[in-house]
Amino acid sequence: MISDYDLQSVYTRVDGDKKKHISRLRRLLMQPSSSLEGIGIKECADLVAQLYRQVGCEKVEVVETKGNPVVYGECKGESDKTLMGYFMYDTMPYNEPGWDHPPMKAETVDMRLPAGKVKALVNRGADNTKGPMAALLNALEACNKSVGRPPVGLILVAEGEEELGSPNLPAYVKKHKKRLSKADACYFPYFGQDSDGGLNLYLGVKGVAYFELECSGKSWGRGPTEFAIHSANKAWVDSPVWRLVHALKTMTSDDGNRVLIDGFYDGVAPPSKEDEEVIASSAPRFDAESAKKEMRIRQFMIPDDDKAALMKLYTYASTLNIDGIWGGWTEKGSKTILPHKVTCKMDIRVVPNQRKEAMMPLVRKHLDAHGYEDIEMREIDTGYDWCRCSVKEPVVQAMIRAFEAFGGKPSIWPTSGGSVPFYVFSRMLGLPFTMGGIGHSSLAHSPNEYMVLEGNRKIAGLPEVEKFMVRFMSEYAH
Amino acid sequence: MISDYDLQSVYTRVDGDKKKHISRLRRLLMQPSSSLEGIGIKECADLVAQLYRQVGCEKVEVVETKGNPVVYGECKGESDKTLMGYFMYDTMPYNEPGWDHPPMKAETVDMRLPAGKVKALVNRGADNTKGPMAALLNALEACNKSVGRPPVGLILVAEGEEELGSPNLPAYVKKHKKRLSKADACYFPYFGQDSDGGLNLYLGVKGVAYFELECSGKSWGRGPTEFAIHSANKAWVDSPVWRLVHALKTMTSDDGNRVLIDGFYDGVAPPSKEDEEVIASSAPRFDAESAKKEMRIRQFMIPDDDKAALMKLYTYASTLNIDGIWGGWTEKGSKTILPHKVTCKMDIRVVPNQRKEAMMPLVRKHLDAHGYEDIEMREIDTGYDWCRCSVKEPVVQAMIRAFEAFGGKPSIWPTSGGSVPFYVFSRMLGLPFTMGGIGHSSLAHSPNEYMVLEGNRKIAGLPEVEKFMVRFMSEYAH
Repeated sequence: MISDYDLQSVYTRVDGDKKKHISRLRRLLMQPSSSLEGIGIKECADLVAQLYRQVGCEKVEVVETKGNPVVYGECKGESDKTLMGYFMYDTMPYNEPGWDHPPMKAETVDMRLPAGKVKALVNRGADNTKGPMAALLNALEACNKSVGRPPVGLILVAEGEEELGSPNLPAYVKKHKKRLSKADACYFPYFGQDSDGGLNLYLGVKGVAYFELECSGKSWGRGPTEFAIHSANKAWVDSPVWRLVHALKTMTSDDGNRVLIDGFYDGVAPPSKEDEEVIASSAPRFDAESAKKEMRIRQFMIPDDDKAALMKLYTYASTLNIDGIWGGWTEKGSKTILPHKVTCKMDIRVVPNQRKEAMMPLVRKHLDAHGYEDIEMREIDTGYDWCRCSVKEPVVQAMIRAFEAFGGKPSIWPTSGGSVPFYVFSRMLGLPFTMGGIGHSSLAHSPNEYMVLEGNRKIAGLPEVEKFMVRFMSEYAH
Repeated sequence: MISDYDLQSVYTRVDGDKKKHISRLRRLLMQPSSSLEGIGIKECADLVAQLYRQVGCEKVEVVETKGNPVVYGECKGESDKTLMGYFMYDTMPYNEPGWDHPPMKAETVDMRLPAGKVKALVNRGADNTKGPMAALLNALEACNKSVGRPPVGLILVAEGEEELGSPNLPAYVKKHKKRLSKADACYFPYFGQDSDGGLNLYLGVKGVAYFELECSGKSWGRGPTEFAIHSANKAWVDSPVWRLVHALKTMTSDDGNRVLIDGFYDGVAPPSKEDEEVIASSAPRFDAESAKKEMRIRQFMIPDDDKAALMKLYTYASTLNIDGIWGGWTEKGSKTILPHKVTCKMDIRVVPNQRKEAMMPLVRKHLDAHGYEDIEMREIDTGYDWCRCSVKEPVVQAMIRAFEAFGGKPSIWPTSGGSVPFYVFSRMLGLPFTMGGIGHSSLAHSPNEYMVLEGNRKIAGLPEVEKFMVRFMSEYAH
């Protein structure tokens, strides 16, 4: 820690500005920015730039790309260390059914979590990831308004296409390599506490590939080609829907969990010695019950009494998932048709040391080998590669020390199940990275996405999260 | 034929009233009556009652049922024979993409069919079956306004729930058995010519059962139960979508054409001697090329050089079809979720002598036997049973003679692939029946549904269809 960095003065400022900080957070949350639908993107980029300026960044630029702009900011720090904060200002859509509160009104809701009562904000993006972004901006302002500078220099990179697979981030990083290389490490803030208060630290992320398969009479040459026909014709006409069912069934074991595509698991690395140690020390703290409750699942794939096995499954599994499927008559009642096409969306999670770019070709090869050359395959976004960082890296150690100062030892996971485009910074710029922190949020990509605003003994509320972020920075400045 | 029934005078009237007849037809077509969506039903029932009166029915009643009303009408005839005309005034929805002309504006469109140029009306219900209904009402009016009476007495029964599986027709028929039993035979008019002008006569219809299968984490006890969760969790959480894929794959052979459900084909009767004769004499006239063109298929399941084999396939195949499937993210882009449920709609076509009511229980038993007790099964409509009538029945012979008078010998098919609720009249009232006639229409249940309005040398236009109907009635009166 920088001996002369006056943390207490920043903390006092955080407490004093609580109302203002909540209001900044709500403003960012309520600004739509659904990149899949192209809603509110420009407005949100401008808002982020405005917030950068508001909290004291010296340099702010809305940088155009081939897609949505990147919002870039710089702020000098007390030490000569520089952290790059990576954010996404785009969100998932919020038009699915199941929202108990309006998805864009940032309502404060009383919530009973396994950790006890809290007040939460319900809004699309609260978890993923406007909530953590606003918290870091608030923390930065508190530093600037008390001590005068944050403990480390900050480079802020907010992209607007994360939910599209960050198609233009690699080009952006390549183009601005010189400027971005001033950073010593990379930091992706989010709320890493479980709903029971458990602390988690992930040392990496899985990669992801996302694509559609379409089976149609047109490309098959059998079945209806142009439109759905009367289902009486099933008697003498083939069905593209049955064809897709039979093509899909060849890809996984009967339980849907083991992928049967040749070479799919090639390259999957077993846990390293460091990973084994990390898991062994973290597993006892993992609360399987809370995780199940949060996802509303009754059981995991495997029994949850062996927590280390469960952690390894989550961390090392490369998966083939069906995200959606549709074809034919999907509304009320009994329209009798033989559909001419059916489509499904799939994602593959890629783990070390699989090659992300090899995965879709393997699926293609599998389809061809099984006689399904006609099934069309479309990449939907460019996806991310996996990346990993050693627990021994100073930036990770700074994060662990911040955890210990605020709540205790975190459970350390070799990778998260989710995917963020850290490979861009880690591989293209060679930067070590860390992510997460205290605070709790959940239901990313689901209705009722939320973040905790006022916490309790076990779960951090917004002011504690902001203090934690300052502490982490000052630990890294050390 | 009734020697003294003045056909020529009716024909002259048909020709003279052509404009008026087209206008009646268009009015009926343009009145929405989508029973699946509950649009325009009451208005259409009232319109049908009004048309009954207009064309000279002596008794007209809109009879309430537990669902949509039945429109009943009576008209005395020259002979003491009585035909019951069965119609449906409801249609499929018309909100699917792919309409080249507005689906409810009954636009006249120049069309080039394999049989040559025609003028057609494009509208939902033109084929199925408001077009034929309007034609019979026109024919009836022409009889009443020229000779004074139709050749046979007519009982008209128009139901408004055929596209829902006629759930209330059996109860209606039971309740009004006495009145309906005055009929000697039943007649379902429609346009039975192929697009190349080929004439077809069907001696029966297949039955149909329609249901949904739903696979959900909630009833399975594995996978997400309440909402879709982040797809990163596929690593340790089971997928209801994969489960449905694997359940479905057990039901058919890899090509999707042979049903593997135990007992599914039990009861399927081989062609009788009469059927073999009928098919042998009809097969040479079946134009496989035109049929393929009409459906926009490039090939049938089997080579089409053996036309008798193809006719038998269409006629005797009991099928398991997937009408629709949906679950998870089905919109644009790459939402990464593990869905909590997936649903598909299926129909089974039932042939003599399968028992329609046995089919869904067989599917249930199959699912249970394969460990899929949790997959829920919902009957969507009550469906129809199959029914058959001998080619030797006088009403069928009258239809054949009418064909011969207007175009030549029809191809006779033991059953149609489609399903109409004739079992109600055939089994509950013991009435023989016939259906079809000349004229051409197509694309029932598809976009661009049409009927020929002005024909050519090979295909009958509206006036010829109306004359044919009168001829058929007079042949039956004989």
